[in-house]
Amino acid sequence: MAKPLAVLAFSGGLDTTVILHWLRENGWDVATYTANLGQPDADLEAAAAKARSMGAVDTHIEDLRAELVDEFFLPILQMHARYEGRYLLGTSIARIPTARGQMRYAKRIGGNILVHGSTGKGNDQVRFETVYRVLQEDPAFTLEGFGIYAPWKEADFLGRFGDGGRRVMTAYSREKGIPLPSGGTDEGPPYSQDANILHISSEGKALEKPEDDHRQVLFTYIQRWDQAPDKPERVRVHFEKGRPVAAELLDEDRNPLHQSVDVGSNDSVVPVVEFLNQAGGRHGVGLLDMVESRYVGLKSRGVYEAPAHAILLAAHEDLESLVHDHRLLHDKGKRALDVAEAVYQGKWFTQEMESWLAANAVEQQRVTGWSEVRLFKGQALPVARSSPHSLYSEALVSFDTASKDYDPMKARGFIDIQSVEQQAQMRQRRTLGGSK
Amino acid sequence: MAKPLAVLAFSGGLDTTVILHWLRENGWDVATYTANLGQPDADLEAAAAKARSMGAVDTHIEDLRAELVDEFFLPILQMHARYEGRYLLGTSIARIPTARGQMRYAKRIGGNILVHGSTGKGNDQVRFETVYRVLQEDPAFTLEGFGIYAPWKEADFLGRFGDGGRRVMTAYSREKGIPLPSGGTDEGPPYSQDANILHISSEGKALEKPEDDHRQVLFTYIQRWDQAPDKPERVRVHFEKGRPVAAELLDEDRNPLHQSVDVGSNDSVVPVVEFLNQAGGRHGVGLLDMVESRYVGLKSRGVYEAPAHAILLAAHEDLESLVHDHRLLHDKGKRALDVAEAVYQGKWFTQEMESWLAANAVEQQRVTGWSEVRLFKGQALPVARSSPHSLYSEALVSFDTASKDYDPMKARGFIDIQSVEQQAQMRQRRTLGGSK
Amino acid sequence: MAKPLAVLAFSGGLDTTVILHWLRENGWDVATYTANLGQPDADLEAAAAKARSMGAVDTHIEDLRAELVDEFFLPILQMHARYEGRYLLGTSIARIPTARGQMRYAKRIGGNILVHGSTGKGNDQVRFETVYRVLQEDPAFTLEGFGIYAPWKEADFLGRFGDGGRRVMTAYSREKGIPLPSGGTDEGPPYSQDANILHISSEGKALEKPEDDHRQVLFTYIQRWDQAPDKPERVRVHFEKGRPVAAELLDEDRNPLHQSVDVGSNDSVVPVVEFLNQAGGRHGVGLLDMVESRYVGLKSRGVYEAPAHAILLAAHEDLESLVHDHRLLHDKGKRALDVAEAVYQGKWFTQEMESWLAANAVEQQRVTGWSEVRLFKGQALPVARSSPHSLYSEALVSFDTASKDYDPMKARGFIDIQSVEQQAQMRQRRTLGGSK
Amino acid sequence: MAKPLAVLAFSGGLDTTVILHWLRENGWDVATYTANLGQPDADLEAAAAKARSMGAVDTHIEDLRAELVDEFFLPILQMHARYEGRYLLGTSIARIPTARGQMRYAKRIGGNILVHGSTGKGNDQVRFETVYRVLQEDPAFTLEGFGIYAPWKEADFLGRFGDGGRRVMTAYSREKGIPLPSGGTDEGPPYSQDANILHISSEGKALEKPEDDHRQVLFTYIQRWDQAPDKPERVRVHFEKGRPVAAELLDEDRNPLHQSVDVGSNDSVVPVVEFLNQAGGRHGVGLLDMVESRYVGLKSRGVYEAPAHAILLAAHEDLESLVHDHRLLHDKGKRALDVAEAVYQGKWFTQEMESWLAANAVEQQRVTGWSEVRLFKGQALPVARSSPHSLYSEALVSFDTASKDYDPMKARGFIDIQSVEQQAQMRQRRTLGGSK
Repeated sequence: MAKPLAVLAFSGGLDTTVILHWLRENGWDVATYTANLGQPDADLEAAAAKARSMGAVDTHIEDLRAELVDEFFLPILQMHARYEGRYLLGTSIARIPTARGQMRYAKRIGGNILVHGSTGKGNDQVRFETVYRVLQEDPAFTLEGFGIYAPWKEADFLGRFGDGGRRVMTAYSREKGIPLPSGGTDEGPPYSQDANILHISSEGKALEKPEDDHRQVLFTYIQRWDQAPDKPERVRVHFEKGRPVAAELLDEDRNPLHQSVDVGSNDSVVPVVEFLNQAGGRHGVGLLDMVESRYVGLKSRGVYEAPAHAILLAAHEDLESLVHDHRLLHDKGKRALDVAEAVYQGKWFTQEMESWLAANAVEQQRVTGWSEVRLFKGQALPVARSSPHSLYSEALVSFDTASKDYDPMKARGFIDIQSVEQQAQMRQRRTLGGSK
Repeated sequence: MAKPLAVLAFSGGLDTTVILHWLRENGWDVATYTANLGQPDADLEAAAAKARSMGAVDTHIEDLRAELVDEFFLPILQMHARYEGRYLLGTSIARIPTARGQMRYAKRIGGNILVHGSTGKGNDQVRFETVYRVLQEDPAFTLEGFGIYAPWKEADFLGRFGDGGRRVMTAYSREKGIPLPSGGTDEGPPYSQDANILHISSEGKALEKPEDDHRQVLFTYIQRWDQAPDKPERVRVHFEKGRPVAAELLDEDRNPLHQSVDVGSNDSVVPVVEFLNQAGGRHGVGLLDMVESRYVGLKSRGVYEAPAHAILLAAHEDLESLVHDHRLLHDKGKRALDVAEAVYQGKWFTQEMESWLAANAVEQQRVTGWSEVRLFKGQALPVARSSPHSLYSEALVSFDTASKDYDPMKARGFIDIQSVEQQAQMRQRRTLGGSK
Repeated sequence: MAKPLAVLAFSGGLDTTVILHWLRENGWDVATYTANLGQPDADLEAAAAKARSMGAVDTHIEDLRAELVDEFFLPILQMHARYEGRYLLGTSIARIPTARGQMRYAKRIGGNILVHGSTGKGNDQVRFETVYRVLQEDPAFTLEGFGIYAPWKEADFLGRFGDGGRRVMTAYSREKGIPLPSGGTDEGPPYSQDANILHISSEGKALEKPEDDHRQVLFTYIQRWDQAPDKPERVRVHFEKGRPVAAELLDEDRNPLHQSVDVGSNDSVVPVVEFLNQAGGRHGVGLLDMVESRYVGLKSRGVYEAPAHAILLAAHEDLESLVHDHRLLHDKGKRALDVAEAVYQGKWFTQEMESWLAANAVEQQRVTGWSEVRLFKGQALPVARSSPHSLYSEALVSFDTASKDYDPMKARGFIDIQSVEQQAQMRQRRTLGGSK
Repeated sequence: MAKPLAVLAFSGGLDTTVILHWLRENGWDVATYTANLGQPDADLEAAAAKARSMGAVDTHIEDLRAELVDEFFLPILQMHARYEGRYLLGTSIARIPTARGQMRYAKRIGGNILVHGSTGKGNDQVRFETVYRVLQEDPAFTLEGFGIYAPWKEADFLGRFGDGGRRVMTAYSREKGIPLPSGGTDEGPPYSQDANILHISSEGKALEKPEDDHRQVLFTYIQRWDQAPDKPERVRVHFEKGRPVAAELLDEDRNPLHQSVDVGSNDSVVPVVEFLNQAGGRHGVGLLDMVESRYVGLKSRGVYEAPAHAILLAAHEDLESLVHDHRLLHDKGKRALDVAEAVYQGKWFTQEMESWLAANAVEQQRVTGWSEVRLFKGQALPVARSSPHSLYSEALVSFDTASKDYDPMKARGFIDIQSVEQQAQMRQRRTLGGSK
C-alpha cells in the first residue's frame, strides 16, 4: 500500500515550517498548499521554495482572493454579520475557502491526510476541520484514506512543543537546520497575526491582558490616529444588486478627487476591496479592540484591522435602510447574529446557510444605489445615500406637504387601535392588586 | 358641568405657542406642562411666563432629568437598544416620562384633555398618545373626562395651518399678537430639532433629501470634525451593576487628566451623563446621519447627536463582553432589536417590557468594572476593560500555558462530534442528485 | 364622468345581501364577486342569481380553490405556521387570494370601489383592505378611481345597522323585499361561520364566553367524538419536494383499505386536501377551541375545524424531522411564528414574505418521502415515516453497532469543551458573592 | 493517599449493575446513588440492597420527586418548552436534579469520581457530565479529587462490552455471579426505557427503524387506544401564579365526577402531576412517536408517554392565551424554542437560563385561573377557560355591542396607516422592472 501523502496548509511561518519538518521526520510524504488570500507582505513563492528545499514532494500556491471576496465575503457583508455585534469575521470567513482549496488540491494530487497548524485552543482548528469533514462527504472532494492530522492536538507533538511554544520551535529549527522565517523567531512581534485581503488580526502575548490597551500593536493596514490626514475624505460606494461595483473619492465639498475604481462588468469586486483598504487604511478606519467568546468556550482578546470591510458595511447598511422596509430590516438584524455565529463556528456548508443565502439573494435584487461615507481619523460615517429603488418619499414625509398617500387624520385611528391591547393589559394590572 | 381643562405639553416653541392660543380661542381652559429634560439653551421659565401671559390658567415646569436617565435610559442602555441597528432612541425614550409627567400633572390639577403638538406623520404622536391611553387605565393616573386633542390630526386646525406650516403659524402669531420665540419664526434654522440631556435630533427641510449631506446642521452637543482637539483623550467609565457611576479622563499614556465625576452613593447617574456629553461632544463623538423607518410606515432622515449615550453604549457593551457568555450575548443581541422597536413605538408599559426588564435586572448584577474608551475626532473606541466578574482567563487562553481546565487534545472530540450533523446533511445532498 | 362602479365581495349571506341593496340605494352601480373557495354547502350560482335579481350590473363566480391551496396554503403548511402556536390560519390565508381575485375582476370590468362585508372589529377587514391597498400599487391590478368602502366602518351604515346587527338587517330585508338566505335570518345558528376548503371557523354569540364550552357548535367537517368510528385508520401521506402529492388509507395492521388519492403529475394538490378532509373529518381530527389575539388588539374566541390541514401539518413536520437538521429546525421554528403573524395580519405581499418564501423553496427540495398518521377520535398521531433524503442512520445511532463515522470516545472531548463556557460563568458566580 | 471513592448513579438495571461490579474489580471503592424520580414499578430499596450485597461501601436513595417537579419541571412547563416543537423533555429535565443530587451525596460522603451509565452516543451523558462539571465550580458542590468516569466512553470498558451490549453484559453477569435484574436480561423488552414521574421514553432496538410503527411498545403510563374509555372526561386544572394547584374531573355535561386533587397551601404540586398521570393515562393522552436530533448530531427515534405533562401544557397554554397579550405570546413562543434546546442539551445552570427564569417569574404572576381539557382516546383538548386577570372582554369583542373602548370607525385609520409601508415596497417593485 502506498505511503500516505499529507497535505499541509502552509504559510511559511515558524509553526508550519516546523510542522513540515516534523511530518517528514515522522515518515510521511508531504505536499504543501499555500493560499494567496491577499495577505500583505507575504512572499508566497519564497515559502513554496522553502517547502521544496525541505523535501516537500509537491507545493502549490493558489490565488483565492476572488473566491474569498466574491463567494464568501459578499454574502456576509450583505447579511451584515458581526460576531457578538462587533467582529467582522475576517479570519473566520477566510478559513472556509482555504480549507476547501486545500482539499481540492489534495484530491488532485492524491493526498490523504489534511494537516493544519492551528492550535487546540482556537476557532481556526474548528473551521478547518469542520470544512474537511463536511466536504469529505461531497463526492467532488472525497479523499481516499481521508484523515486529519492537527499537530497541536497530538500528544507527541504537544509533548515536544507544547510547553514553550515559539521559543522551543525556534530552538528546534536551529538544531535541525530549518530555515527560520525572517522575524518569525522567538524575538518576533509580541503578538501573533493573521492576515488576508479583508483584515488583519493581532492576538496573544502582549495583548493577553484585556485591561492593557493595544499600544504594542504595529498596524499594517491602517494608520495610527496621529498619522492619518488632518482633513476628511469621502468615499462614494456604488452597489449593484448588493455588490459594491465602484467607489470614488470626494472631498468634503463633494468634488471628485480623481481617485476611483470601477469593476464594470467584471465578475470580481476584489479591486473595490483593495481600493477601500487603501482609502480606509489611510484614515485609520476599521480598527477594533475587543474581547470575544471563542467557540471552544474561552474568552479571548483581539485587535482587528479591516478598513474596506468597515467602509463597505457602513455603506451597505446605509443603503439598505433606504430600500428595505422596517420589518425586513428587523428580521435581517436577527439573522445577522445567527449568520455571524455560524460563520464564526465554521458552519458554512449547512442547511441553515443555504436557506439564508437564498433569502439574501432575493433581497439583494433591490440593493442598488450609492452611499457616501466620510473617512476621518478612524471613523467611517455615512452622510448621504441614494437608490433608484428607494422607499423614501420626500413628498410623503415632508411636514409641509399634504399628500393623497398619507392622511395625518388617519393616524388617530392607527394610534387608538394599536393601543387597544396595551390598554387591556394595563387594565388587567388592577386585578393583579398592584403587582406593578 | 365644568369647562374642560386642557393640559398642553408646552415647549414654548412656535407650534405649542400657537396651539395654546388656538385652544383658548376655541373656548378651553389651558394649563401648560413643561418638562425639563436637560435640553440645552432652553429657557423654561420664560416659556412658562409666556404661557401665563397668554392666559394659561396654570403652568408647571417639572425636572424630569433624573427620571429620564435613571428609570428609562439606563435599561435601554443596558439592553443595547439601537433602532434599526443605529438610532439610540434619544427622543423616543424621552417621550415616555414626559407624557407620564403630563398626566400626573393633569391628574393633580383636575385636567381632562391632554394636548401635544406632535405632527400626524411622526412617531412622537404615537408615543405620547399611547402612554396617555395606557396610563389612563392605571388608577394612579386616570383622568376624569379623559380625552386627547392632537391639533395636527384635527380637521379644523389642519385646515388653518396644515398647508404652509411654520410660515402660516408665524403670520398667525403676528396677526394675533402672540409673542414669537426667538429664532422660532419662519426664518428659523432649516431643520427642526428635538433636544434633551441624551440627544439632539435634527430633521426635515434642508435634510429632507437623503442624497444631500447634513452640512447645514449646526451641531449643539458635538464639535465638527475640524474643531475637535487634535489629540485623543480617553475616558474610563466605571460601572456598578450596570450603572455608570463614575468616569475619569486620561491621556493617551493613561495618565489622569484630573477631570472626573463620581456619583458615589447617589441615586442618579445624571452627572455622569452630563460629564460624558461634555467630553464626548468636545471630540465630536455621537454623530449619526441615517434614514429610518417610522412606525407610521414612512422613511425619514435624521441627524442625531448623542455623545454621552454613544460613549456609554460602547463602554457597556465592551464590559459586558467580559462578563456575559456567548449564549447570553447572542440572546441579548436579538432582544436588543425587539427592545429598540418597542421603545421606538412607545410600547413601554407593556407585558413584554416588564419581562425584558426582569431579565435585564438579573444580568446587570455582574456588570461591574470599567471600560476605557478613546475619544478622538468623532470616534469612541474601547481599548481596555476590566471586571472582578470577568469570564476571561489569561491562564486558559494563553497559547504557551498548559492548564488543567482546558486540554487541547479534547478539542479533537469536540470538533468531530459537532461535525456529525453537518456531515450527515452533506451526505444527504448526494441523494438529492446534486441539488447543490 | 362615469358613475363609480362598486365591486362587492359577495357571499350571498345576510350581510353582503343587505350591503348590495344598500349600495344600490345609495346610488352606486354594483358588481358582485363570489369566490369559490371550496366552502361546503354553498350554492354560489344561487347567490349570483340573487345578486342579478337585486340589480347587480355584473356578477362573477371564480374558482379559487387551486390558487388558495397551491399558491398560498402550501407555503404556510411547509413553514408550519400556527398563529399563537395553535391556529392554522384557514380564514386568514383565504382572504389573500379572495381580495386579489376581487381586484383582478374589478380591473377587468372597470370597477373603482372595492367593498367587503367584514366588521370593524375583526382581522378580515385588515386582510382585505391591506391586499387592496398593496396591490393597487402593482400596475397589474391598479384601479382607476380606486377606493375602498367598508360599510361596517362607515357612519351612515353603522347608524342604520350598527346597533342590533343581524336582527336589524333581517327586518330591513323584510321591509325592502330582499330575499333572505335560508337560515341566514335572526334565527340562524348561535354563532357565525367562515368556511373554505381548508377550514371552518365558528365565532361569536354562543361562543362569546370563553368559560363556556363549544357544545352549541354543529360541526361541518368533523364528526363529534361520539360519532367517529371506534377503530383507528391510518393515512400515509406522500410528499414530493414538500408537496403532498398522494395519500392512502391503511388499517392498524398497515393493510391498504383501498382508498387513496394521487395527483400524479398534476399541478394542484386540491384532491389530496379534499381526500384528507374526508378521512380526517370522519375521525374528528382538526378541532380547535381557543382564545386568540386579534390584530386590532382584542382577544376573541374561536372554534375551528381543519381536518386536512391538521393531518398535513402533522405529517409534514414529522417528515421534516427526518430530513432537516437541528439547526434548521430551530431556525424554522422561530420563522414559523413570524410567518404566522404576518399571514394573520394580511402581510403577504411583503419583503419579509418574499425572503421567507425563497428560503422555504430551497428547503423543500429535500422534503420527499412519506409520513404515516393514525387518525382516531380526534387525534392525528404520526407513527412512522421514511425519506430517501433521511438524515437518520440506524448504523450510527444503534447502541450495539460500532461505526467508523461515530466514535463514542470522542464524546469525552465534546462534552468537556462544550462545558468550558458554562464552567467559567459558574466560577464567576463566586466573585458575585453568592448571588445565586 | 486515600483510595478514590466512586459515586455511581445507580438504577439497579443491568448496565449500572455491571458497572458497579466493574468499578470494584478495577479497584475502586464505590457508593451508589439512586434517585427516586417517581419511576413506576421500580424497587429502589431492592436495588440498594443489591448494591450493598455487591460490595458498595455506601448506598443512598433520595426522593427527588418534589425537586424535579417544583424546581425544574414547573419552569419548563410555564415556558412551554418542546424540543423541536414536540418532545416535552421528560428525560432531559430529570437528569439535572439527579446529577446534582449525586454530587450533593458525593460531597457529603467524600466521593471523588462521578460515574454514570449513559452511553457515548446519547444526550444523557452530556446532561450528567455538564452538570457535574458546572457544579464542580460551585463551592457548595466542589469535590476534592473531582473526576468523571463514564464507562461507555472508556476504551477498556468498551473493549469488554462495546460490541454486543446487553447480551455480553448478561453473559458477564452470569459468569461473575452478579444478580440479574428481573427482566433485565438479553431477553428483555425489545427497546430500552427511561422513566420518571413526568414521562417514560422507549428507544432503540425494535424502534430503530423510523419507518416501522411502535406496535411493539407496551405502554406503562397510558392506555392503548382500544382500551381507553369510550366516553370522554374533562379535567379542570386550576393554576395559581402559574402553578397547577388543583384539578378536578368532570363529565361531558360538566358535572363533577368527585375525583379531584388540591395541594392547598402545600409547596409541592407533585400530587397534581400524579393525579393527571392517572386521568390522562387512562384516556391514552400524552403519546408521542418522533424522530429527534440528538445534541451529538445523530437523529434518533423515540416513543414517549407523558400524560400529566401533556395535559398541563395544553391547559397552561390555553390559560395564558387569556392573560398574556399577543406580543408577549409571540416573544414567549421564540423563547420556548431556546429554552427547550438549552434543557435538552443540559444547559440549566447558565446565564441565559437565569435570565429566562427571571422573565418567566414576572409573567407567571398573572397566570391564575383554570382551563378545562377534554380527555378522550389520546387527545387532550382545551374547551373552556377562565381567569380573573383575563384580557378578554366580551363587551369589546361582541359584534352587536357598541363600546366606548373600541370604535370600529377608527379601524379605517389603523388599516390605512399600517399599510403605508407595504404600499411603498410594492410601489418600489415597479422600479425593479417586474422582479416579482
